[in-house]
Amino acid sequence: MPDTPSDSGPQAALQITVADHLLRRLRELRVEHLFGVPGDYNLGFLDQVAASPGHTWVGTCNELDAAYAADGYARLRGAAALVTTFGVGELSAVNGVAGAYAESVPLVAVTGTPATAVTAAGRPVHHTLMDGDHGHFGRMFAEVTVARADLTADNAPAEIDRVLRAMVRHRKPVHLNLPTDVVLARVPAPGGPLLTPDEPAGPAVLRDFLASCARMLDGARSVTVLAGHEAERYGLRGPLRDLLAAAPVRAAVFSSGKGVVDETAAGFVGTYTGEISDKRVRAAVEDADCLILAGAPVADSVTGGFSHHFTPERTIELRPWRAAAGRAVYEGVGMAEAAAGLAGLLRDVRLPVPEGYGKAVTYPDVAPGGALTQRHLWSAVGSFLPEGSVLVAEQGTAFYGAQEVPLPANGRFVGQPLWGSIGYTLPATLGTGLAAPARRSVLVIGDGSLQLTAQELGTMTRYGATPVIVVVNNDGYTVERAIHGATAAYNDIAAWDYTALPAAFGAGPGTVAVRAETPAELADALALAARTPDELVLIEAVLPREDAPELLTALARRFAEQNAYGA
Amino acid sequence: MPDTPSDSGPQAALQITVADHLLRRLRELRVEHLFGVPGDYNLGFLDQVAASPGHTWVGTCNELDAAYAADGYARLRGAAALVTTFGVGELSAVNGVAGAYAESVPLVAVTGTPATAVTAAGRPVHHTLMDGDHGHFGRMFAEVTVARADLTADNAPAEIDRVLRAMVRHRKPVHLNLPTDVVLARVPAPGGPLLTPDEPAGPAVLRDFLASCARMLDGARSVTVLAGHEAERYGLRGPLRDLLAAAPVRAAVFSSGKGVVDETAAGFVGTYTGEISDKRVRAAVEDADCLILAGAPVADSVTGGFSHHFTPERTIELRPWRAAAGRAVYEGVGMAEAAAGLAGLLRDVRLPVPEGYGKAVTYPDVAPGGALTQRHLWSAVGSFLPEGSVLVAEQGTAFYGAQEVPLPANGRFVGQPLWGSIGYTLPATLGTGLAAPARRSVLVIGDGSLQLTAQELGTMTRYGATPVIVVVNNDGYTVERAIHGATAAYNDIAAWDYTALPAAFGAGPGTVAVRAETPAELADALALAARTPDELVLIEAVLPREDAPELLTALARRFAEQNAYGA
Repeated sequence: MPDTPSDSGPQAALQITVADHLLRRLRELRVEHLFGVPGDYNLGFLDQVAASPGHTWVGTCNELDAAYAADGYARLRGAAALVTTFGVGELSAVNGVAGAYAESVPLVAVTGTPATAVTAAGRPVHHTLMDGDHGHFGRMFAEVTVARADLTADNAPAEIDRVLRAMVRHRKPVHLNLPTDVVLARVPAPGGPLLTPDEPAGPAVLRDFLASCARMLDGARSVTVLAGHEAERYGLRGPLRDLLAAAPVRAAVFSSGKGVVDETAAGFVGTYTGEISDKRVRAAVEDADCLILAGAPVADSVTGGFSHHFTPERTIELRPWRAAAGRAVYEGVGMAEAAAGLAGLLRDVRLPVPEGYGKAVTYPDVAPGGALTQRHLWSAVGSFLPEGSVLVAEQGTAFYGAQEVPLPANGRFVGQPLWGSIGYTLPATLGTGLAAPARRSVLVIGDGSLQLTAQELGTMTRYGATPVIVVVNNDGYTVERAIHGATAAYNDIAAWDYTALPAAFGAGPGTVAVRAETPAELADALALAARTPDELVLIEAVLPREDAPELLTALARRFAEQNAYGA
Repeated sequence: MPDTPSDSGPQAALQITVADHLLRRLRELRVEHLFGVPGDYNLGFLDQVAASPGHTWVGTCNELDAAYAADGYARLRGAAALVTTFGVGELSAVNGVAGAYAESVPLVAVTGTPATAVTAAGRPVHHTLMDGDHGHFGRMFAEVTVARADLTADNAPAEIDRVLRAMVRHRKPVHLNLPTDVVLARVPAPGGPLLTPDEPAGPAVLRDFLASCARMLDGARSVTVLAGHEAERYGLRGPLRDLLAAAPVRAAVFSSGKGVVDETAAGFVGTYTGEISDKRVRAAVEDADCLILAGAPVADSVTGGFSHHFTPERTIELRPWRAAAGRAVYEGVGMAEAAAGLAGLLRDVRLPVPEGYGKAVTYPDVAPGGALTQRHLWSAVGSFLPEGSVLVAEQGTAFYGAQEVPLPANGRFVGQPLWGSIGYTLPATLGTGLAAPARRSVLVIGDGSLQLTAQELGTMTRYGATPVIVVVNNDGYTVERAIHGATAAYNDIAAWDYTALPAAFGAGPGTVAVRAETPAELADALALAARTPDELVLIEAVLPREDAPELLTALARRFAEQNAYGA
């Protein structure tokens, strides 16, 4: 856009491009990597990304993988950005954006669109449906985002800020359409930061909520916290640590929230999954005099098919911008302020120390020797996990097997139990690796899932991500076999040569790829991984076809009932 | 569903399941393969597919690839079916469905959904957005299909038939939501065939249209047909052959319609692309006294950025269920009946034989020797193509390079210039191979595009598809470099070991994978492919990074202008 006369006035120095405005805001959100695939409607913006000293472009093999990688990145960084081209690119990625919605992951999907005049005229350009309507894809994105905008040279700064603020407040994906001719349009530089401190509910609302909680806690002999994924996304790790330190409270997690509670803490008991939970975990949650649900909405996959048992009048619930004490709801209360308030109350409650309090959660003993089994696998992975590492577990046997594995100090966990899109974790591990290079990412993924998105192995080494990847080769979709069609051919997959993949995908010469068929071979492989923190290590673990973690077997039975094919 | 008393009456023998109804209708449409990925909401239907003697389940590595494969299958068979699970599966595939819409490819996307009662209650089950609304994805599919239905035990037969008829009439994708509990519900067996002969426009409309055409043809000294993709989809190959046989008419194609005109016919002149066309082709189209546009809507990618020059008063246009003579539009006229009528008129017109008529279109001579170039590549591919083969060309250098290559007798061509989703052709080649096993599929695809969907190489050999695949290794996204960012890092890709891929993906022991760096090596590789028709043959052709077909270079320049990044 040509300079206008006003550019020579005192305001001229404050003018920046729309692309710069967006990139500045992303920097404020700690988004330093942008994931995507180039396409002719986004190349002008990619020039600006490439020219930005604070940003790195991460080109993935395809757009769905980019969305998954952005999701993984956002889980460690608090936000992420995905850049695709119009139509073909954004629709390839939309499943990943929907997953971010289901799992409350904040990411912005930026679509490079045809120039404003081309769109206004509805011209039949490539990447449209050829019907003159350029609005189809924006309407599709509206279904899976909490805010979106079609940027113009006039509205860009305000709309970018509005949309990014919604992303942060709701921890959900958002969408921006960025036309080619708007990328370099000049706009006033922002006068202040993107985010201002969250406006908490009025002090009166918080006070009333805590007064109700105090009445519920009064006389309680046992208090348990059950944390879900919203606790992780809204930064409740610290507040929950303080809460557990305030009194001998026990804590469990939904599988969706694994990692948000310090699993080395005295009160931690494990993962709660309704009726199919470990007996001790189930008792801690269901028999507590007061249950604090921290960002833990229910779903079939985290409750053993809705087999949870909570008693509303004994339950305090924290949700994004809403809290409840029993059946009384307090709108506007933030989760962090509510958790801090509860910690204060608990300091004054004289709770007895529960039985088994302080006993560390450990993986059950496994006899060594024989063929490799799921139990050997998880015992070995649990022993291997370095402090601060990120355990990433693919939906299927891996996700449910991982639930029994205690995380190390300062560990993190990434999975996708609510959306449950197979193939998600491999690109997500690219994202976690780039978001937190000081943490080792350790991915466990089945062969069936790996085949959806395997090509990003090459992208990992290209951008310096060096995870440990355990590929569970059990000859097909074992999670589906557990639900339906145990021996059906549709649950079979092609027999790949997994250890050949890193080299075929251009991973560097230091890359390690080994096959383990026995517990000893797996132990050796993980020992090698420990010695090579700067290399990608792929371990193919050969497991029996229908060997599945007990939790998965029990859950699969309940899913089969829910599906009710009948006849 | 339990049998009801009426099942024991005389009607009982006529009851079938909803799954059987759908599978019967697909058989009527020659759909014998169903493409997709198993997921817990579709496993019950997959049982029925597996049990159907007339059907083969083709499990691809991921759902987008399944959609692409179904698209390729439909282009050879006339229809195709895609089966995914709710949410995660269908959204992964939706870009492929949108592509089928843009390019007028009839396919039905069947989504296995949660049970009716689960959906009615809006339960937060896995694969939903966790907001109680199960309707998001159906609404997204409504944007990219011409008909869709949420099946129930009551409406299934009528709704399946309505939706499939719309698919056939409009040659566009459609969508069916099939809940788990509806799969085996019993419904009356169909009393008649799915399709009844198309209702043509009343004879009066056709007569008036042809009378207008006769006036336009009267005194015309030159007539040219320009055919597009709709001519292919609506079965105009035969009618166009008759039309060209009726008089010394010349014929060109848009790149979108390549293959629908017999390229060995006396009147064939080549591909028309507006101002960037070959001079002879351009003159044949733009200077004709009468131009017949046969199913050839314009788009930037097939007209050199809207640089076509048609004169409305000299143009007859055939479109689906609508014809025009000059500016007079005749609603309801079918393309086949219009083409047959025009052939009749042309038999009575005394056209002079145009200059060069009957001169076969050939690929320009290329000097052998030196390093391999695009010109060597296309010359060699053109010489190799066996009779009846299917040339599949990926959007990018491959698609535009292929335009100069004359197809052999009875040849077919598959590309995706309107939607232009990179990665499309590799899975599409799985589809063409299964749809037409007697034809050899020959795919030419760039390295950047291959990386999106490469894993289906393993699926090909698993199901017996044995294409020849030429991977153009030119070190990145050459098509994007031609448009913008010639040396930009975002147009780089990971350096894969392409010839290692078939083995890594579990392709059988007979599979051939060779690398060609010189014209002689490429000739040897293609000779080997000719000798091994029952094996998958992958040829890595190493080409200079910025060597592109002239047509692409010219088109890319026009796309860059259209995008107008400015500044």
